[in-house]
Amino acid sequence: MNAEKYVYSFREGNAEMKNLLGGKGANLAQMVQYGLPVPQGFILTTHACLEYGKDEKFLDGIWGDVVAAMNALEKETGKTFGSGENPLLVSVRSGAPVSMPGMMDTVLNLGLNDESVESLARASSDRRFAFDSYRRFIQMYGNVVHGVNGDAFEEVLEHAKKTLGVTFDNEIPEKDLVEVVAKFKEIFKKSAGFDFPSDPWQQLRNAVVAVFRSWGNPRAVTYRKLHKIPDTYGTAVNIVSMVYGNLGDDCGTGVCFTRNPSDGTKELYGEFLVNAQGEDVVAGIRTPLPIAQLKDAMPAIYDELFEITTNLEKAYKDMQDIEFTIERNKLYILQTRNGKRSAGAAVKIAVDMVNEGLIDKKTAVGRVSPEQVEMLLHRQVDPKAENEVLAKGLPASPGAGVGIVCFDADDAVELAKSGKKVILARPETCPDDIHGLFAAEAIVTSRGGMTSHAAVVARGLGKPCVSGCEDILIDLNKETISKGDRVVRKGDTITVDGSTGRVLIGGAPLKEASFSEDFKTVLSWSDEFARLQVWANGDTPEDARRARSFGAKGIGLCRTEHMFMAADRLPVMQRLVVADSYEERVKALDELKVMQKEDFYGILKEMQGLPVIIRLLDPPLHEFMPKERDLEEELAELVAAGKEHSPEADGVRKVMAKVESLKESNPMLGFRGCRLGIVYPEISAMQASAIFEAVLQLVDEGIDIHPEIMIPLVGVKTEMEFFRKQIDEIAKDYMEKSGKKFSYLVGTMIEVPHAAFVADQIAEHAEFFSFGTNDLTQTTFGYSRDDAEGKFLGHYEDKGILPVNPFHELDRDGVGALMEIAVEKGRKVNPKLSIGICGEHGGNPSSIAFCHAVGLNYVSCSPFRVPVARISAAHAAMGKIS
Amino acid sequence: MNAEKYVYSFREGNAEMKNLLGGKGANLAQMVQYGLPVPQGFILTTHACLEYGKDEKFLDGIWGDVVAAMNALEKETGKTFGSGENPLLVSVRSGAPVSMPGMMDTVLNLGLNDESVESLARASSDRRFAFDSYRRFIQMYGNVVHGVNGDAFEEVLEHAKKTLGVTFDNEIPEKDLVEVVAKFKEIFKKSAGFDFPSDPWQQLRNAVVAVFRSWGNPRAVTYRKLHKIPDTYGTAVNIVSMVYGNLGDDCGTGVCFTRNPSDGTKELYGEFLVNAQGEDVVAGIRTPLPIAQLKDAMPAIYDELFEITTNLEKAYKDMQDIEFTIERNKLYILQTRNGKRSAGAAVKIAVDMVNEGLIDKKTAVGRVSPEQVEMLLHRQVDPKAENEVLAKGLPASPGAGVGIVCFDADDAVELAKSGKKVILARPETCPDDIHGLFAAEAIVTSRGGMTSHAAVVARGLGKPCVSGCEDILIDLNKETISKGDRVVRKGDTITVDGSTGRVLIGGAPLKEASFSEDFKTVLSWSDEFARLQVWANGDTPEDARRARSFGAKGIGLCRTEHMFMAADRLPVMQRLVVADSYEERVKALDELKVMQKEDFYGILKEMQGLPVIIRLLDPPLHEFMPKERDLEEELAELVAAGKEHSPEADGVRKVMAKVESLKESNPMLGFRGCRLGIVYPEISAMQASAIFEAVLQLVDEGIDIHPEIMIPLVGVKTEMEFFRKQIDEIAKDYMEKSGKKFSYLVGTMIEVPHAAFVADQIAEHAEFFSFGTNDLTQTTFGYSRDDAEGKFLGHYEDKGILPVNPFHELDRDGVGALMEIAVEKGRKVNPKLSIGICGEHGGNPSSIAFCHAVGLNYVSCSPFRVPVARISAAHAAMGKIS
Repeated sequence: MNAEKYVYSFREGNAEMKNLLGGKGANLAQMVQYGLPVPQGFILTTHACLEYGKDEKFLDGIWGDVVAAMNALEKETGKTFGSGENPLLVSVRSGAPVSMPGMMDTVLNLGLNDESVESLARASSDRRFAFDSYRRFIQMYGNVVHGVNGDAFEEVLEHAKKTLGVTFDNEIPEKDLVEVVAKFKEIFKKSAGFDFPSDPWQQLRNAVVAVFRSWGNPRAVTYRKLHKIPDTYGTAVNIVSMVYGNLGDDCGTGVCFTRNPSDGTKELYGEFLVNAQGEDVVAGIRTPLPIAQLKDAMPAIYDELFEITTNLEKAYKDMQDIEFTIERNKLYILQTRNGKRSAGAAVKIAVDMVNEGLIDKKTAVGRVSPEQVEMLLHRQVDPKAENEVLAKGLPASPGAGVGIVCFDADDAVELAKSGKKVILARPETCPDDIHGLFAAEAIVTSRGGMTSHAAVVARGLGKPCVSGCEDILIDLNKETISKGDRVVRKGDTITVDGSTGRVLIGGAPLKEASFSEDFKTVLSWSDEFARLQVWANGDTPEDARRARSFGAKGIGLCRTEHMFMAADRLPVMQRLVVADSYEERVKALDELKVMQKEDFYGILKEMQGLPVIIRLLDPPLHEFMPKERDLEEELAELVAAGKEHSPEADGVRKVMAKVESLKESNPMLGFRGCRLGIVYPEISAMQASAIFEAVLQLVDEGIDIHPEIMIPLVGVKTEMEFFRKQIDEIAKDYMEKSGKKFSYLVGTMIEVPHAAFVADQIAEHAEFFSFGTNDLTQTTFGYSRDDAEGKFLGHYEDKGILPVNPFHELDRDGVGALMEIAVEKGRKVNPKLSIGICGEHGGNPSSIAFCHAVGLNYVSCSPFRVPVARISAAHAAMGKIS
Repeated sequence: MNAEKYVYSFREGNAEMKNLLGGKGANLAQMVQYGLPVPQGFILTTHACLEYGKDEKFLDGIWGDVVAAMNALEKETGKTFGSGENPLLVSVRSGAPVSMPGMMDTVLNLGLNDESVESLARASSDRRFAFDSYRRFIQMYGNVVHGVNGDAFEEVLEHAKKTLGVTFDNEIPEKDLVEVVAKFKEIFKKSAGFDFPSDPWQQLRNAVVAVFRSWGNPRAVTYRKLHKIPDTYGTAVNIVSMVYGNLGDDCGTGVCFTRNPSDGTKELYGEFLVNAQGEDVVAGIRTPLPIAQLKDAMPAIYDELFEITTNLEKAYKDMQDIEFTIERNKLYILQTRNGKRSAGAAVKIAVDMVNEGLIDKKTAVGRVSPEQVEMLLHRQVDPKAENEVLAKGLPASPGAGVGIVCFDADDAVELAKSGKKVILARPETCPDDIHGLFAAEAIVTSRGGMTSHAAVVARGLGKPCVSGCEDILIDLNKETISKGDRVVRKGDTITVDGSTGRVLIGGAPLKEASFSEDFKTVLSWSDEFARLQVWANGDTPEDARRARSFGAKGIGLCRTEHMFMAADRLPVMQRLVVADSYEERVKALDELKVMQKEDFYGILKEMQGLPVIIRLLDPPLHEFMPKERDLEEELAELVAAGKEHSPEADGVRKVMAKVESLKESNPMLGFRGCRLGIVYPEISAMQASAIFEAVLQLVDEGIDIHPEIMIPLVGVKTEMEFFRKQIDEIAKDYMEKSGKKFSYLVGTMIEVPHAAFVADQIAEHAEFFSFGTNDLTQTTFGYSRDDAEGKFLGHYEDKGILPVNPFHELDRDGVGALMEIAVEKGRKVNPKLSIGICGEHGGNPSSIAFCHAVGLNYVSCSPFRVPVARISAAHAAMGKIS
């Protein structure tokens, strides 16, 4: 029917075939190539999933191939699928090209029915085990294939345990399990409307369909959206013969990493459980043992595992996350994949592997994501904190979070929306809690290990997490965390220290991260591969110093208005604003000039050798004025004191009149930016003079400086011409008067749509452009940021009107299109035009990737985000983010 | 040197060569072709002017050709240039490709010096005439070529007249004129720094240079900017042998039109003066006689003139404006050109000429400009007005204006800037007054005729003007208008009725223009040639009725918010806004729905057969709420009345809290437009329901209606999807419940830049787009209209930062570019997409031309501007405006 091959046995694949076979399948196949002990199996490709999505009849067409592959598997294992004396049981597992842990469905123990369960009992000589597998199968199959609510099954188990007076599932004896199975089948029938299917082939087919469909379940769709995984990937289905870690004490199952995923130490790191199935480890139901103890428990197995995992890391050239099962003293590797790791581990492993000669620097840089760098900038609990330690659990995901406790994912989302910082506390988490994990500052669980769901997801999200904190009792009904008498209630504040595993009472003081040497190394390597430079926004010499220390290569935005806000300067600024005449204005400006010169001197000196872009006055003048109500009160007090006709009262009235005249309906779109300098050219003249006076002094001192003057809010070329001429004349004047030469650049912000469309005309008079994407986003969407975020952007995100907040991540359709227009037009006229961005997007990885793609020269962001921007710039150049 | 020919004799040109020879020269040449009595002469081309502008040495290269042409002229006239017994004297006149009356320079009587003046005296047997010509020449040449201030010359003349006890220049006897000439030469020497040049060739060359340069004088540059004449045209220079209308009573000079330029009547219309030079007529120094009196004074000349002018009109197929001079009973035609006319005359002449078979309908439509149609919409003095008539002058430019009197052009500009309506009163006006004429509501002059400077310019600008109002005395020093005892002072209000020539005391009531049948005819023809439809914006059945009567083909914008502002509705709207719950909101909405249904019923019925676009609620909710200060006062009153804890006070407090919560920093960019409906879908649901209920009632009544629902402020496709779905569901519901079908369209405004960039995505869910260019201009420039016009746009226009106010004339660089993007993207997805504009630009001719060019389907404007838009749409289609 179709020429394409949709079913591959493990022997036919390899690690390169991830897109077709999924990550899990490709790695299983690769391990078969390496000759490792992998359970036999075969794979339905991701293309099969996609074809099925288009037309469900597609499965009929390839079913013959599935049957053939199954028959081959029977032959290979010497077993018969779901029947005979030694029945072949299989797992049916999802496996997408990129890892989406826990997001899609899996069915284990498939092939069991009332007949084969007895054969399994005989073959394993363990009827309890056989029925335990059977009840797990019914529960999983029921849930995954027919959507039977898991709680109904759990209730039966709980009831049985209660009746028997036991705590754990594995304490339920064989005969009770047989009853459990009967009850499970009743639950299934009641919910599904028909008997539990006993035909293994029917089970298989239904499970395959369920896995195909799970690609589209809401949880998976949300995960893909969050992690930007295309919907067009699809998932493969892995059909693998079952091996059992729960046949007795010579059995076990575990998960291990070739390096410590939390701190990156080179060691075999992981956990195992004796006499258990893999799901017991991952689900966090029993707290497993450290892998080191396997050495004592099963030394030969440990040695074999160590050798295999070491070789796998060498083969894959990356830290591996390996699942294994021991069935009656035989080791099986069920899965290997590149291991998820904490940000700190990522950095250490990347640098160590370069030092070990395993990977090159470029690969190392590519292994540390911008999100991980961001996490490394996470705060830590101040070592001097004296908060009471409630308990200590596993340091599952580093960083520290303070917030109020809540116990439900939905609550966490609601509270976070209302602006609260929340800590999500759960005995354990499951994929249904993903939205709560996303909303929380940090997570605490009382059960589960370093590889439990909560731990894995928290590390992925960069949220601090303490898991397996068994000293505490998390009561979901009472909504309390308690340890003995000490009780923390819903709404109480606690601190989660994911780096040490501590849970602290109250909000502990946090401190900024300090940078490790490895971290600095990776960042310096990343600069080698980036094409975009990273500059920082900063208004003071202190900002400049911090920016340099974080590796900024210039100041992309020095806002001069902040300089007027200081207590000694504001009165002078207010005099300037209130001035009736040019002369009064000039008098106030002369005073301001002296102060501004000092400011510019300081920042230019601090940044010696690097460019500093100084932006001329931008905000509307009313921002420098007292509030109307304050003035009214002041006047009322004067009147009350009988000073109605005093000079003070007249002064207040004059200021009030000015404040009134400065009122604007929409100040964002009003009298600000370069519009101020067109109406009052003496203001921009003062600022240019202050800059050039600072420059002359620095030239005298022999300091290498690179001043650039930026005109805000230019929309038409005549504005640019106006200031270009003014500034050049002032510069010429200073050079002539001093007899000294100095160089400087003049450029503009591009922050209204009109400027982008006439960028060619503007570029005739400008040496650089800097995209002010905050304002450009406001004007392109017609959103006032101040109003929109409070009034409707929340609704817009909730209702899916906007996929992301465009003030956080640069909108490409509109804002990006304008940037492309401006870059193209600007460079056409002036190929040497330097173009950057100084809006907040300059520190956002996706936005940086866009800036790289459209050919900007630099991004400028807050000093604290410089490291994120540096790695992002490298990843953008490598095509790792886009 | 250069292959191009820069000097043409009249015999070498024709009327088609206007671009090269200028309008005046081409027409003179054409008249020579027709064999008419034209003074001999030749032309320096407009290209020569442009070349001279680039490099002054250019003139050296072609001077030989000028001399040769002059020699040919000497031969032809049998005279010698500036010497000999019968000296050849010439005029050197500017002449651009399009008429710029009075804007550039002219020198008459060139060739006179102390020697040739005596020859002229002998040849003319009139030494007084010769010296009068000489003093005029010195004055004109001095002023035009060397910038000698005309006042100095005038003082000498005034002094002479005072001493002699005479009133008019022509009463100064010969010997005193000889003295005047001597004094004029002294004035010249004092000002220019050297003797008045006696060499005719030097005079000629300097005059040519002066005319070339006058292309760039500020007055001409301003005029070109106002009338959008390209700077690259240049002016030709016409060198014409002088003929004299001031050699005695068998001489004269005049100006005539082939039809009445004020009302369009087919008659020889104009004025003449006996024994005068042409400048006397144009300058308005002596009030001339009606042309009809020439029939009595010089019957043969009149007949010859009548025949020539009649033929000229037939030849040019347009009303001609002809200058003539009679030298000793011989008629010379000095100039013919298409005559400027009042708007009313333009319409009548266009229709008459079609009826006479002279032109076709398309030409007729092309002859009536949008500006003229606009003038026809000018108001007139109400016939019932009982204001005192101060005086009656000539009805020089129709329409009526009310304002305060001022006497100086600069004053007029200042007062107009401060928001005052002003009437400019001057004895006469000159080109230096152009800015004052532009600023004034209307103009009155005490001197000058229908073709005086004031009259010509006022007709061009569409300002009402009464000229030659000789009954009144306009005293510039005292700043008064007086007639006997009656004195009007600066700042007093008067009314100028340019249609009847009356000046009225006080502000007379004005009434809107009524449309003549000819006007309606031209508009209906224009619809035949237009491709754009013209729709109107209107919110009420009255608006709709008016729109239809003005020829609108639909309602392009029916704003529903105005419907909520009525006294009986505002309280309900306020209840809606203050509502705490969905239920309260729905209750208020149900009340509003009943009212809205009526509104929609009315307007849809009025527009039967034509489309009506109803826009859903657009403004921010706070616009419906009481002012904060009012609420504070209300509360204070209640407290004062001891009702602090009353339910009323609580009610006020609740409203105050809501008003507070609705406050926005930038409401233009805030919670408004479709954002309201996303957050409160019940509001848009109510509006859609009201529309469909009205529709169902009209369907029952068998009325043909075309409702279209427009979503405001859409920026992303998901917004459009949201409302499309909501509205379609509501419509479906109404259809199902009623069992009736009706059709409707759903579309959106494009009024933020983002919408333009994603217009393709939006068009998937929209059936029409309407550009809201008011908002689009605000967001594209980042200008809040409310703030910008008061705070900085004035400065921007003054300093030339913006050539025009982008809220008046559509900006093409930015706003236009976005429109083009939206049209292209929208039509790509939906080729049938109907696209229009409903911003104020929809009534602006240049903006309409752009809408035509980018392929819109319609423009929608205020009902009153529909006629302007209709003619503009036709002119745009004909390529007459762009």
